[in-house]
Amino acid sequence: MVITSTDNPRIKALAKLKTARERRRTGQFLIEGGREVERATAAGITVEALLICRELPGAIDPIDVTAEIIEVAPGPMRKVAMRENPPGVIALARQFDTALSRFVPGPKSLYLIAEQVEKPGNLGAMLRTCDATGADGLVVADAATDVFNPNVVRASQGALFSVPVAVAGTRDAIDWSRQGGLQVVGGYPDAAAPLWDVTLRGPTAILVGAEDVGISAAWREVAVPARIPMSGQADSLNASVAAALLLYEAVRQRTDRPLPAGKDEPVAESA
Amino acid sequence: MVITSTDNPRIKALAKLKTARERRRTGQFLIEGGREVERATAAGITVEALLICRELPGAIDPIDVTAEIIEVAPGPMRKVAMRENPPGVIALARQFDTALSRFVPGPKSLYLIAEQVEKPGNLGAMLRTCDATGADGLVVADAATDVFNPNVVRASQGALFSVPVAVAGTRDAIDWSRQGGLQVVGGYPDAAAPLWDVTLRGPTAILVGAEDVGISAAWREVAVPARIPMSGQADSLNASVAAALLLYEAVRQRTDRPLPAGKDEPVAESA
Repeated sequence: MVITSTDNPRIKALAKLKTARERRRTGQFLIEGGREVERATAAGITVEALLICRELPGAIDPIDVTAEIIEVAPGPMRKVAMRENPPGVIALARQFDTALSRFVPGPKSLYLIAEQVEKPGNLGAMLRTCDATGADGLVVADAATDVFNPNVVRASQGALFSVPVAVAGTRDAIDWSRQGGLQVVGGYPDAAAPLWDVTLRGPTAILVGAEDVGISAAWREVAVPARIPMSGQADSLNASVAAALLLYEAVRQRTDRPLPAGKDEPVAESA
Repeated sequence: MVITSTDNPRIKALAKLKTARERRRTGQFLIEGGREVERATAAGITVEALLICRELPGAIDPIDVTAEIIEVAPGPMRKVAMRENPPGVIALARQFDTALSRFVPGPKSLYLIAEQVEKPGNLGAMLRTCDATGADGLVVADAATDVFNPNVVRASQGALFSVPVAVAGTRDAIDWSRQGGLQVVGGYPDAAAPLWDVTLRGPTAILVGAEDVGISAAWREVAVPARIPMSGQADSLNASVAAALLLYEAVRQRTDRPLPAGKDEPVAESA
């Protein structure tokens, strides 16, 4: 039986999961799109139900899935989907554990800490960069956007399921970084040392602040400043761009290749 | 007199400028937000009218402006604005010249070429990065999104007005890069040389491809490949992230600082 009414109670309940409050209440979230659903199941995410609309592109034959199958018409699919052009498949999934205590830093650790980042697109782009740089995890500190927001899932292109993610308050995240012996490195436009001169070879957490206000006072006390040079009229970069520049600088320094003469010392520590 | 009706013909005409077609037809575009309008006027953009809603945050007193002032209620403002929470001021502005012939490469030139980039947020983030890196300009090749889209204006945080922008077809942009003696460098996940080993000191254009399909065959023929190392499951980075990594690598190489031993040679040219 295909659900055709947008007033169907099941559809209304699913559409509610577009709000952070309902996701918190139920511990569930939505995954839009066949590729994303495949990556989620491959990563061991529990899919409880699959909404399938055969009239929309990307509908899949859920042969491998033990989840409940709900066949719907385009109208109900549009109601449940966050994106304007709904996909042929949306999964109802169970949220995974995001406790920070799962993250145990080691001597080669590389983490990204995103403080109060608001835009789902930025969190998604950061997850992709964490995946590409082989970062050990993303810590969402003092979350301004729920990582289970459908737009984060989408913008991450499935990296939400391959990159370990933790959510924590600022205080807890600072304590964790201290106890783990992590050097926290934040990008500032006015720091003395450019990022290329701050050694990122030891256990490191890259820190980026909120889109509008940047890094908070609490984090400024613990973070080593690294200057991202800016020569223009604008005073900041997109948050996910700043994160990527610092993460890839860590990759550059950790790649087995000659360093500039005299740059093997941790400049930031002597500054 | 304050316009209160969303059916007002003036309001309806302005709201139409949210479509690319109407912007093309009229040569006008909309600038949402006081800070963005200030940056536009400072950059010499012609503002023809200012919509002001004193009941919304950010309304400005347009003392310095010779433009027509249109006072409106929140309803009409919401109809004209692209963003969900409309600002107190929206400018009706005249589009500026985007001819590629304005761009004359020199020996130190650094350009960004964005091919078929679709997401306004990505174009906006690229403009901010061009501004920060002091790039000579952004070339939007085979445009998939109009640079005068209100969401590009917004995401650029005004960098659309400080960074020179050109729009061109792929063929014209390739001819321009050849005639200007530019080394075009594109990011590929599978190139032999990592970006840190490709010399970006000469006249250079960084190339990024469309979000979904990457760099096209036509550009692949002219572009020097630079590998952005990726170690994860995802096979690509956000387009504006890839652009920033390459642009900042050019900045790093052009900064007056020691290069790694043996890395002063243009590796890409000998490869």
